[in-house]
Amino acid sequence: MLPWSADLAGRLDEHVISSELLRGNPLGDPSDRPLWVYVPPGYDAEPDRRYPSVYVIQGYTGHVAMWRNRTPFRQPFIETADGVFARGEAPPAIVIYVDAWTAYGGSQFVDSPGTGRYHSYLCDEVVPWVDARYRTLAGAAHRAIAGKSSGGFGAMITPMLRPDLFGALATHAGDTLYEQCYVHDFGAATRALRAYDGDIWRWWDDFRSRVAFTKEADHALLGVLGVAACFSAREDGAVELPFDPRTAVLRPEVWEQWLAWDPVRMVPRYATALRSLRAIWIDAGKADDFNLDLGAEAFRAALAEVGVPDEVIRFELFEGTHAAIEYRYPLSLAWLCQRISI
Amino acid sequence: MLPWSADLAGRLDEHVISSELLRGNPLGDPSDRPLWVYVPPGYDAEPDRRYPSVYVIQGYTGHVAMWRNRTPFRQPFIETADGVFARGEAPPAIVIYVDAWTAYGGSQFVDSPGTGRYHSYLCDEVVPWVDARYRTLAGAAHRAIAGKSSGGFGAMITPMLRPDLFGALATHAGDTLYEQCYVHDFGAATRALRAYDGDIWRWWDDFRSRVAFTKEADHALLGVLGVAACFSAREDGAVELPFDPRTAVLRPEVWEQWLAWDPVRMVPRYATALRSLRAIWIDAGKADDFNLDLGAEAFRAALAEVGVPDEVIRFELFEGTHAAIEYRYPLSLAWLCQRISI
Amino acid sequence: MLPWSADLAGRLDEHVISSELLRGNPLGDPSDRPLWVYVPPGYDAEPDRRYPSVYVIQGYTGHVAMWRNRTPFRQPFIETADGVFARGEAPPAIVIYVDAWTAYGGSQFVDSPGTGRYHSYLCDEVVPWVDARYRTLAGAAHRAIAGKSSGGFGAMITPMLRPDLFGALATHAGDTLYEQCYVHDFGAATRALRAYDGDIWRWWDDFRSRVAFTKEADHALLGVLGVAACFSAREDGAVELPFDPRTAVLRPEVWEQWLAWDPVRMVPRYATALRSLRAIWIDAGKADDFNLDLGAEAFRAALAEVGVPDEVIRFELFEGTHAAIEYRYPLSLAWLCQRISI
Amino acid sequence: MLPWSADLAGRLDEHVISSELLRGNPLGDPSDRPLWVYVPPGYDAEPDRRYPSVYVIQGYTGHVAMWRNRTPFRQPFIETADGVFARGEAPPAIVIYVDAWTAYGGSQFVDSPGTGRYHSYLCDEVVPWVDARYRTLAGAAHRAIAGKSSGGFGAMITPMLRPDLFGALATHAGDTLYEQCYVHDFGAATRALRAYDGDIWRWWDDFRSRVAFTKEADHALLGVLGVAACFSAREDGAVELPFDPRTAVLRPEVWEQWLAWDPVRMVPRYATALRSLRAIWIDAGKADDFNLDLGAEAFRAALAEVGVPDEVIRFELFEGTHAAIEYRYPLSLAWLCQRISI
Repeated sequence: MLPWSADLAGRLDEHVISSELLRGNPLGDPSDRPLWVYVPPGYDAEPDRRYPSVYVIQGYTGHVAMWRNRTPFRQPFIETADGVFARGEAPPAIVIYVDAWTAYGGSQFVDSPGTGRYHSYLCDEVVPWVDARYRTLAGAAHRAIAGKSSGGFGAMITPMLRPDLFGALATHAGDTLYEQCYVHDFGAATRALRAYDGDIWRWWDDFRSRVAFTKEADHALLGVLGVAACFSAREDGAVELPFDPRTAVLRPEVWEQWLAWDPVRMVPRYATALRSLRAIWIDAGKADDFNLDLGAEAFRAALAEVGVPDEVIRFELFEGTHAAIEYRYPLSLAWLCQRISI
Repeated sequence: MLPWSADLAGRLDEHVISSELLRGNPLGDPSDRPLWVYVPPGYDAEPDRRYPSVYVIQGYTGHVAMWRNRTPFRQPFIETADGVFARGEAPPAIVIYVDAWTAYGGSQFVDSPGTGRYHSYLCDEVVPWVDARYRTLAGAAHRAIAGKSSGGFGAMITPMLRPDLFGALATHAGDTLYEQCYVHDFGAATRALRAYDGDIWRWWDDFRSRVAFTKEADHALLGVLGVAACFSAREDGAVELPFDPRTAVLRPEVWEQWLAWDPVRMVPRYATALRSLRAIWIDAGKADDFNLDLGAEAFRAALAEVGVPDEVIRFELFEGTHAAIEYRYPLSLAWLCQRISI
Repeated sequence: MLPWSADLAGRLDEHVISSELLRGNPLGDPSDRPLWVYVPPGYDAEPDRRYPSVYVIQGYTGHVAMWRNRTPFRQPFIETADGVFARGEAPPAIVIYVDAWTAYGGSQFVDSPGTGRYHSYLCDEVVPWVDARYRTLAGAAHRAIAGKSSGGFGAMITPMLRPDLFGALATHAGDTLYEQCYVHDFGAATRALRAYDGDIWRWWDDFRSRVAFTKEADHALLGVLGVAACFSAREDGAVELPFDPRTAVLRPEVWEQWLAWDPVRMVPRYATALRSLRAIWIDAGKADDFNLDLGAEAFRAALAEVGVPDEVIRFELFEGTHAAIEYRYPLSLAWLCQRISI
Repeated sequence: MLPWSADLAGRLDEHVISSELLRGNPLGDPSDRPLWVYVPPGYDAEPDRRYPSVYVIQGYTGHVAMWRNRTPFRQPFIETADGVFARGEAPPAIVIYVDAWTAYGGSQFVDSPGTGRYHSYLCDEVVPWVDARYRTLAGAAHRAIAGKSSGGFGAMITPMLRPDLFGALATHAGDTLYEQCYVHDFGAATRALRAYDGDIWRWWDDFRSRVAFTKEADHALLGVLGVAACFSAREDGAVELPFDPRTAVLRPEVWEQWLAWDPVRMVPRYATALRSLRAIWIDAGKADDFNLDLGAEAFRAALAEVGVPDEVIRFELFEGTHAAIEYRYPLSLAWLCQRISI
């Protein structure tokens, strides 16, 4: 394989979609968004055939153009996904690459007064847009959503909220079990804020004024600020942190808002929706840097608890960390397509 | 200084105390305990003089004989403490080295059906024993307690529970703000228990059958088991873990039992006791491995919240981690003695 | 700035160059290579103007398509380089992105019977190709070479070997001082090879049979094998390791072949060439993961030793590691262009 | 087992020996040294019996009083060694704990104008002193030496130099293969010296003026300085570093002096001595922090090369690092005693 390029058996269409729902979003982010739609080999040759669809969303700080990034000795997911269909490992499907970037690096795929209406954008604008322009099988039974990290979170919650739209999901190291994946970072953030007099906005001003990620604490602070903007912004858009930035003590009322978005804790509330799903892929690296392997275990146990049948679940902890696990995506893609094609 | 020995200006008496309260303790640990009492230089020459006293307790897995351990280019605390008095840096005091070791490595200095009555042992047996045999100033105003890590925890809670006995404390990197210092280890423990089918007792059997600490997870598992025995044993002594050992999901009712012992959370309940103290030393390394610098900040803030006056508090975050910080102890010892001598 | 795209003020031409010298290379790598040439803003409007040129080469495992990779909150070098000229921070120049990828991940930009004639390819094919098609100032005084890591190595040695072609260089964390940057990895490689019975070819077969970099040792082993192919292949192409793969003991005669390619050690031999250069940029992160900050110090000291004047050298150790330092490249680009334009 | 004390089946005699050879040593260290001699159970009851002897030496920064240090859930070597004999796991032997501490933390058990005559002290003073006062089997065939880290180094070289005295050895993670165990630290030291203007004596003054080991670089710098004092002091005692402290570049003539003391490299020179040994124990943790597992492999391979028969060698790499491996010592002690008793 040549490292610097590859031809697709299918076709990737790069669109820009004008979102009404994102217009005037609080961060001033664009409402015209890139939207990439992949059609599998054979799509043009069979003009009457309809296809299942898989929506792919990204982890925190991911934006859609990063799907083209090339790494040595590996292929981008766009190509490995194409390979799944080219080699006939799964029934053909349409794959949609959705962008939900914000100025803070992500949206968690929720509607928030702190960032914008990214959940509604995805469900009420992107899905109909795709269904209108591509020959999809338009029912939830034939529509899946998949992602890693924050994208795995989005893949867990979106079908809970909209089982009418999504009938299957894949979460790779998705954010959940928040006391394990977030609380430790609140400590790191508190330490880092000592240099900013405990004021995260002073850090934010500093961060924007220089090359990003040249200070060690940038990642933890960006994550904390960005996720707070998604989960605990007030109606006027003001962001509230779930901890005292001088002591790391949790602020219970704000922390509760975060916990209300913890997939593990959401499962009982959305049990009916979850029981309606046809396929749920859950995986994570056994040494995930954010303990999301524990979250995967907990999410899987919570599903069992509410009666989601084992047959629809594929669960695996693999050797690995949170990094460089994009080689897992074609595995879940093939598995999902096998289940949502019929 | 010669590395292998030193003469004391004062005198260290090594006693064994027979405890009624520890007799028949649930772990079968000895009820005859070593108790070391140090008297400062001049003690014998001034037979009518009475002295303040400082009780020194140890961190998890510490036992009293470890006070004699020598490390290169440093002196043991017994010697640096002696030096404080030999050089006249503080008014002379009696220093008592208390042992509260258990088969799990520690007692947290609380009474528990899982380990024994170590709090009562300290307060109702050791203190009277010392007062009866040494010329102490026997009031709380002249009695302090100090420790590091779990010993810092003991130093925080003992005066809250017994302000009639202890009028001052020093906590070096004491256990507090439990979501920061313990929850992350629950994740580590859960991962480690994968090799034991989620059963901590299988690990415990393994641990006791071989050389200790030859597996990486030994430390985290021992801490979790041991602290659970202190904080969340049932009346019959059975130990309950505060999390599901297969998923790391917190068990709220057990976790609440732990939180009831979190010094930061105890402060409001014991505000009156805390306001009665004459001296409170709080420190921690800025990069404490268990985030106890955050705990120190949180404890200090909680004290301010309930009106403990700034004048009685000495607070410092220093450059360092959780390891090799015994050089801080003589600093707090001198400071405490200055405040409890008059 | 939008994260997912940017317009260039200049223009990037993507070519493919057919190399005679790479034809039939021992690894079966393509002899048709991508070659990207950037022309600055104004190039087309001033058809008689000639420009200096800067050749940019990559670190180990880098290939030319990776220049397009996008990272969050940062811009790719192609765009930050364009920005240098768009904002007039340096006189305009032509920037050439050269590909020297091999099946082992890199070529070290040398001629080797183990990989191919990448040095000659660069000097005798790429440079004339560019000079023939673009309005360059074709003398060494107006031609520079720059790179990071293995690319920094290439940037150090190429002007030593061909001062007739290159009159300036920039090395960012370039490989040098081999006892500091390579020997430690020989130990890591030896340990990793325990699982392969000490046989690096067994590892190589394993590596090619699965997803790359799913084993922790992959990076160290690939680097060792690949650099050995560059520095210590026999005439028949057989690769010799510079250490015994069971004990890590250096093999002196092979290790000497490596040391003959150590820039620090090459300086005295190429003193005349080095003294002829107009501009030498040397930098590295103070905490470079491969100790290349020490290499930078050593290279700089060696230049002083042979009389390279201070005025042509720009030296800096900055806060950082070996990762995410591509924001340094536009700094050296601007500095080089200022010095090779006149 | 009680953690805070234990009774010995044998007896430990704590002596002080007055050394002529250490008198006036260049660092002003004491010439009166602690010397502990352990006699096994039964020694006094069998007044005509003679015993083999094992000399035990320590790692860098170790001094003899540290043998009494207690760690949780483990016993000190003095007690586990006693247990070997108490349980009859090996024929009884006399065990001698030798002190070779210096102001720099160690002596490497060599004679050096930079530290003193510790090799001669051990061989020409301690051994005769013990033989004169204890019922030893006084021939080399019945005398062994054992140690860890720098003590392992001492255990490797002393029988090479004095096969007339020592007929067996045990090295646990002993210093050898210097390019793997030392050179990386030269880089760390060079970085650390940036804060001291490249002057290790400025660091040394700083180190002695404050609490030791409160700066991260203290360990690396102490090791470099101390070992240089052992291996590369000039006749007048002046210490020469084997690298340029501003660039980490090796100084070949000084580095050669170090390599002359590398056990792996010494083996061919001392092949006859080594072939005369009755028992050679070599082990190390597979993840030794200083790569001494590689050194163990290399030393073992070098012995094979010069014809030391396999039967006298016991070689093992075990799961572990450089820390907390004192539980290995009784294993080698028992094995040595079995081989030197008859």
